[in-house]
Amino acid sequence: MAGRYDPQTFRAPTFHDATPAFRDGGDSPRAYLERCLAAIAEREPVVKAFVTINTEGARAAADESAARWKAGRPLSPIDGLPIGIKDLLETRDMPTEMGCEAYRGNFPKRDNAAVSALRRSGAVVLGKTTTAELGGAHPPATTNPFDPARTPGGSSSGSAAAVGAGMIPAAVGSQVGGSIVRPAAFCGNFALKPTQGGINRGERQSTSMSTHGIHAGSVEDVWVTSMAIVRWAGGDPGKRGLFGPATTPEAVKPSRLIVLETEGWPDIDDATREGFARMLAALEAAGVTLLRRADHAWIEALEGAIANGRSLCGSITAWENHWAHRNLVDEHPDRVSERAKAVLARAEAMDFEDYRRLLVEREAAQLRHAALAPLADACIMLSCPGPAPLWPGDRPGQPLAPRPTGDFVFNAPSSMLFAPAFTMPLMGVDGMPVGVQLMGQQHEDARITAMARWMMQAVTPVVVA
Amino acid sequence: MAGRYDPQTFRAPTFHDATPAFRDGGDSPRAYLERCLAAIAEREPVVKAFVTINTEGARAAADESAARWKAGRPLSPIDGLPIGIKDLLETRDMPTEMGCEAYRGNFPKRDNAAVSALRRSGAVVLGKTTTAELGGAHPPATTNPFDPARTPGGSSSGSAAAVGAGMIPAAVGSQVGGSIVRPAAFCGNFALKPTQGGINRGERQSTSMSTHGIHAGSVEDVWVTSMAIVRWAGGDPGKRGLFGPATTPEAVKPSRLIVLETEGWPDIDDATREGFARMLAALEAAGVTLLRRADHAWIEALEGAIANGRSLCGSITAWENHWAHRNLVDEHPDRVSERAKAVLARAEAMDFEDYRRLLVEREAAQLRHAALAPLADACIMLSCPGPAPLWPGDRPGQPLAPRPTGDFVFNAPSSMLFAPAFTMPLMGVDGMPVGVQLMGQQHEDARITAMARWMMQAVTPVVVA
Repeated sequence: MAGRYDPQTFRAPTFHDATPAFRDGGDSPRAYLERCLAAIAEREPVVKAFVTINTEGARAAADESAARWKAGRPLSPIDGLPIGIKDLLETRDMPTEMGCEAYRGNFPKRDNAAVSALRRSGAVVLGKTTTAELGGAHPPATTNPFDPARTPGGSSSGSAAAVGAGMIPAAVGSQVGGSIVRPAAFCGNFALKPTQGGINRGERQSTSMSTHGIHAGSVEDVWVTSMAIVRWAGGDPGKRGLFGPATTPEAVKPSRLIVLETEGWPDIDDATREGFARMLAALEAAGVTLLRRADHAWIEALEGAIANGRSLCGSITAWENHWAHRNLVDEHPDRVSERAKAVLARAEAMDFEDYRRLLVEREAAQLRHAALAPLADACIMLSCPGPAPLWPGDRPGQPLAPRPTGDFVFNAPSSMLFAPAFTMPLMGVDGMPVGVQLMGQQHEDARITAMARWMMQAVTPVVVA
Repeated sequence: MAGRYDPQTFRAPTFHDATPAFRDGGDSPRAYLERCLAAIAEREPVVKAFVTINTEGARAAADESAARWKAGRPLSPIDGLPIGIKDLLETRDMPTEMGCEAYRGNFPKRDNAAVSALRRSGAVVLGKTTTAELGGAHPPATTNPFDPARTPGGSSSGSAAAVGAGMIPAAVGSQVGGSIVRPAAFCGNFALKPTQGGINRGERQSTSMSTHGIHAGSVEDVWVTSMAIVRWAGGDPGKRGLFGPATTPEAVKPSRLIVLETEGWPDIDDATREGFARMLAALEAAGVTLLRRADHAWIEALEGAIANGRSLCGSITAWENHWAHRNLVDEHPDRVSERAKAVLARAEAMDFEDYRRLLVEREAAQLRHAALAPLADACIMLSCPGPAPLWPGDRPGQPLAPRPTGDFVFNAPSSMLFAPAFTMPLMGVDGMPVGVQLMGQQHEDARITAMARWMMQAVTPVVVA
């Protein structure tokens, strides 16, 4: 059954263009919030994007924001922005359950650094969005906003679905393998997975390639929300943090883009392959030169260095999590999923020298990527191998489906390269969203955002029936 | 009043030389533990090094270790080692109170990655050792084992004091500014503050220049304990971890050492200055060439780059902790010290660009240090400006003493340079210990350990009345 998504007509809610009316009283943050609450009332029973919604707290915050806008003193460009927070991040006014039975009722009265920064910027922290268990693969009940039989992707399932369903204009997600870009691509979001270390992860520093990132309905809201967080929370400890202007960079046309195949190339379905080819043809028609693996030995070298990226990302992260997950399973043996236990068992079969070998591979791939800087402005690739897959749920007694939230094969590269990736809802395949992403060199977050802005202006989204 | 320490006769308990007798039944881990418990019974009422002691758990672990040694199957060279764990690190069988009223009764049933690795190595986790509040400057009740009127140093106060008092042969400490090397130097310990990232900090990843490190009564026990942890816990996420053999490196005589003054040079007391000069003269007499800031422009450049190290370390760490500490103070306003609140206020007056400037300074200093690699085998410097200061406690109504656990002026350099530092109890001044340290290039932990071993064989400890 086809979904109901059309990339040429679909518009997710946006915030950046609503704020001028907050000054003159034509609109207000409170009225904006009420529209979100109405959308939630309509869509949430099927989409199930939220774990907790703090309606009263949000209304109070929106009223305070309204007063600031009327007085001409907003705290930031996102003052009044209703936002969802992935339920891995601590919030002082809502529990943090991490999609895991072992954390049911967990309620530390603390704000993650990014959440604290959002509040200082005036954002309205509306609710906690669902996550796959512990940021892994075991899915929440959330459904895809364009077809409830399909996954919204994961692990930032609720953040992507809430934006795609038009319930909120922006949400915070996080990624270690593909947990921002993939669900964003499945749900028609824009999203920036920043350079590793770009946005302070607060209490969540335990893995070497996870980042916070923003899902939103427009390039502009992704960027200004990211920078508003960095204004107060900075980057990870010891890291340089995100660079760029507080306002969205002007559109910049790329001269040359490298088309990366990645190890996912054989897995692309026919319709998506056709759509991506048409997208690339449109870029060439617009005057962008495309380079491919056959065109240059250095591109082929990067393709080779990331050809095992999915396995590499999975193993590195499983190792880095294994002490914490062992403690959790020992304390709550019946409240952690079999999926998470299987990952733990795999990690416990590794040793530190195995892990070190993977770090060397990752570092080598990063060097191969850095070597491409003089060749092109950025890399372009699919954000997922096709539309969100159907997800009927696990069946008792059957083996666990390997990837219930979809395949992160197109997301492992930016994760392992510590590179920024900006995904755009530029394709519709079988009535479902499919994302296309730009990946830049480390710290070129603003540069790929400028090019993403150009692409949204210059390229018509592709529809494949 | 003079203390009772003589570096030429004092011997802290050692473990590496006890294990041969575990095989033939002449001694046993249980008997070793009982000797520790007897020392604790004698010294602990005054020294107050422990927050919690798990006597029964330790006896059971020691009995299991004894059986392994008798069967000829010890898990590692430290199987049976009674060890103390700084009370910042989580332990599944004891509370983790972090020297802070707000954490009174905090008891997560989890093991820090290093603690988990110690257990897998067969070590006997005997107790939690005191820490200055949250690893900062507000002192615990612990006293110096050589003079109860003086501080043991901090923040690893209990780890250093317990080893110095002969209660245990080894303890885990941690350092962000000077929290391993300084208390070790005040308490007659050996200690290795490893290369940044060398030992996995587990749940404690939130600052960019903290490390776990080992306090012990000998070079050998420091090294084998460090490597036993790394065998199972590795380094920090994404970091290469400690390199070196599982057994202690053979002694290596350095050819050339750089004498670093640091910003602490004017603060050294006269007796300590005389003692250090005699120590350096002994090295020259043994054939070691010494280089100083006047000898080479690159050395002067490093001295310049670390001349503000104390302030730089303090500000970076205060910034990195400030979200977590703000949450804590908001939740428990009356259960956090005024000292910690003053640091928090200073951090909250910074912004992210201030922090970034400090990162640039730190990185510049690291480049200056790396440039010295071809000049010499290592740097040598005092571990503290003199013996542990008197600490009569805060006086109500009076301003807070600025550094109740002593000055970390000689410890900031290795912290900000991410460099390994090995401190040795090579001086006695006024009947109190004063440490001397070797600092190596990043990842030269094994190399400075080999040189430390040589120094302990080749140089007679200096006594200044």
